[in-house]
Amino acid sequence: MEKIKPRTLSGFLELLPEKQMQMEKMLAILRETYALYGFTPLDTPAIEAAEVLLAKGGGETEKQIYRFQKGDSDLALRFDLTVPLAKYVAANYGQLTFPFRRYQIGKVWRGERAQRGRFREFYQADIDVIGDGALDILNEAEIPAIIYQTFTKLGLTRFRIRVNNRKVLNGFFEILGLSERAGDVLRTIDKLDKIGAEKVHALLTEECGVSGESADEILRFISVPGTSADKLAFLAQYQGRSDVFDLGLSELRTVVEYLPAFGVPEENFEIDLTIARGLDYYTGTVYETVMTDHPEVGSVCSGGRYDNLAEYYTNKNLPGVGISIGLTRLFYVLQEQNMLSENLLTAPADVLILPMTDDLSGAIALATKLRAAGLRTQLYGEKKKFKAKMAYADKLGVPFVIFLGEDEIAQGKCSVKNMTTGEQQTVTSNEALLMLRVAIDERNAGSVIQE
Amino acid sequence: MEKIKPRTLSGFLELLPEKQMQMEKMLAILRETYALYGFTPLDTPAIEAAEVLLAKGGGETEKQIYRFQKGDSDLALRFDLTVPLAKYVAANYGQLTFPFRRYQIGKVWRGERAQRGRFREFYQADIDVIGDGALDILNEAEIPAIIYQTFTKLGLTRFRIRVNNRKVLNGFFEILGLSERAGDVLRTIDKLDKIGAEKVHALLTEECGVSGESADEILRFISVPGTSADKLAFLAQYQGRSDVFDLGLSELRTVVEYLPAFGVPEENFEIDLTIARGLDYYTGTVYETVMTDHPEVGSVCSGGRYDNLAEYYTNKNLPGVGISIGLTRLFYVLQEQNMLSENLLTAPADVLILPMTDDLSGAIALATKLRAAGLRTQLYGEKKKFKAKMAYADKLGVPFVIFLGEDEIAQGKCSVKNMTTGEQQTVTSNEALLMLRVAIDERNAGSVIQE
Repeated sequence: MEKIKPRTLSGFLELLPEKQMQMEKMLAILRETYALYGFTPLDTPAIEAAEVLLAKGGGETEKQIYRFQKGDSDLALRFDLTVPLAKYVAANYGQLTFPFRRYQIGKVWRGERAQRGRFREFYQADIDVIGDGALDILNEAEIPAIIYQTFTKLGLTRFRIRVNNRKVLNGFFEILGLSERAGDVLRTIDKLDKIGAEKVHALLTEECGVSGESADEILRFISVPGTSADKLAFLAQYQGRSDVFDLGLSELRTVVEYLPAFGVPEENFEIDLTIARGLDYYTGTVYETVMTDHPEVGSVCSGGRYDNLAEYYTNKNLPGVGISIGLTRLFYVLQEQNMLSENLLTAPADVLILPMTDDLSGAIALATKLRAAGLRTQLYGEKKKFKAKMAYADKLGVPFVIFLGEDEIAQGKCSVKNMTTGEQQTVTSNEALLMLRVAIDERNAGSVIQE
Repeated sequence: MEKIKPRTLSGFLELLPEKQMQMEKMLAILRETYALYGFTPLDTPAIEAAEVLLAKGGGETEKQIYRFQKGDSDLALRFDLTVPLAKYVAANYGQLTFPFRRYQIGKVWRGERAQRGRFREFYQADIDVIGDGALDILNEAEIPAIIYQTFTKLGLTRFRIRVNNRKVLNGFFEILGLSERAGDVLRTIDKLDKIGAEKVHALLTEECGVSGESADEILRFISVPGTSADKLAFLAQYQGRSDVFDLGLSELRTVVEYLPAFGVPEENFEIDLTIARGLDYYTGTVYETVMTDHPEVGSVCSGGRYDNLAEYYTNKNLPGVGISIGLTRLFYVLQEQNMLSENLLTAPADVLILPMTDDLSGAIALATKLRAAGLRTQLYGEKKKFKAKMAYADKLGVPFVIFLGEDEIAQGKCSVKNMTTGEQQTVTSNEALLMLRVAIDERNAGSVIQE
């Protein structure tokens, strides 16, 4: 028979078992952490009606989307988790309780040009809080705590949550009389990190129609140094000149004020007045998260406050705040940087039982007992030489092997081999269980990420 | 602005939060149980090259598949998890360790005619063990234990795992000289439950070319009553007349023999000689699982032993055994039958903190403390009247509410209200933590399914 080449499409991440296990641990930590903050899990279809997904329409999205006909239906794969959320909230408005807090971790699809580190299918891990008509600033203040917990539980310590407030920026431009040109100015100051202050100044004056004096002030504003307290003090000088600015500053103050109670250390947080996160959508606090030692990666968790989640579907006013982690890309980056812990247990089982007798009842009963105690147990039944069996255990990377021969069974015992130390002990099944339980719990205590 | 109707496609399950929480618990139990048996999680792309997915080609699959072009690529959504597994094992053969035990829980898509209880997007939850050239019968014997554990952990007790062996059937037909007509005969006896013995007999003689005598014998064979031991004793009379039959009987004996050591009670198991599970694919033990009180639902977990997983991709001989749970359909059926437990905690949080002060630091610090102890905690910050806040707590279904007023904060205490009993107590935060921890653990001890 002629064979078809068993290939996986480029731009689609498909992991070998050890790597997949690391990914699963990350997924589990995200689910767990999001749940701790009172978010409910949501699952929406991968396929939606194209007109629903493209309600906002236009731009890059429309080019990248996977869209197709089935029968008479014009369908498309979701390209993010925000549009499905908007649809869900609008469709189920009467049955939801607001503020509605949901997390969704799922794949999305974008037919981007394939290149290294770019994916056409990738996981997003989103949380959003949606208010009905209004949403208290406390929800914005809580987001840094969630980001902090999530990355800390993953094992990362060297990261910074960067926060800004769009009202502060918009109010500042209002004060400078630049409201009309805010879009161009935002796009320009966003380049500060890349091209430097001098070039930003040149662009502002030459291309955005900003006066030299205002350009100076903008650069002073976005580059103000110091702690969060220093920056808030600096911002205070603009108070009383724009209502939007004053509201934004008060919101920013609230976010900073509650950080200690939320358990977010000062060193993992900073006010960064250059952050805008796009032009149209966000209206209040905006967030980015960068790995301190890998600024080149860009933000690994971003989001912000928006005023209207579902305006394409409903007249209801649904303000919200949310963040998103691009999990597939994060995983890829961590792997490239050798930051995925090698101490983590990635074997499919905690223990492999090698029966040495023809009657397997004893080995099976032991496996049943270990499984009942929560130990991931594999029974090996293949008819192979002892050496081949041990090679299998080695290759799998199981931390423990149990041998069960006639002598052991006769004595009500089993031989436990620690595959890391090479140590072997003959003990009762209860002793084996306890020993393994302790050792495996210890192994599982480590984090996914190592720095 | 004109609004787009926020609709979800028919045939696509999208759950409200409480229901989604029940689904998540089921997913978690499946992941956990599969892992206990030494299966490693796998995740393959939703989209594959059409030629890869359709390597086997033909039939219903080709009509139902979601297939589309993107640029020059002919793509399709996976319609099961077996073809992607075959591709994965063939593509990564050199890097995998055999027997390779994997589970995959993921969505698949089939553009079937939409009807009640039929889904176009649905979860499958599969496990497979793949051998390299050979695979010991122990792997087949272990499957009933996994099915038993899975459904028991979900909370189901009234179910039966039905097992047959294709070699027993094929050997029996060989003994009767009916090997050539085995396909027609299998299709006919599969109807026994639906049309009864008399009509099966008529079809066998009139349409399958089976003699009256052989038809009698076939009906006697497939209808043999009694326990597993009785049926094995009945089958023994055919021994020595066909190698295939003898091998099949020996395999079936092994499966039955090890049930007690695997912890599978006799009442959850039976040999059912009518089960074939299709004509081409399975070659050894085959499995079905039925809910005792709902036979109309059909099998909720099926599978079997096959000889060649990936023959369309590779010359390697890769025998395996696997089962699949159609999770979306199972969930739908449980919901229809009111079998999803109402005692299960489906609120997004274990406790809702209602701050009664302007400064929220105390409430936030308490939330941080409860979260650190693993309690799912929501902070409520909306500016609403007390009654509206309590209505929110009620509607969410949170089991506990904590009030934090100035008096409480001054005394280092908080007021905890049990929303089920209405009881309210003012206690220290440590006492509150302990009280909640115990109560929530108790609530979470229940099963997803109630009978």
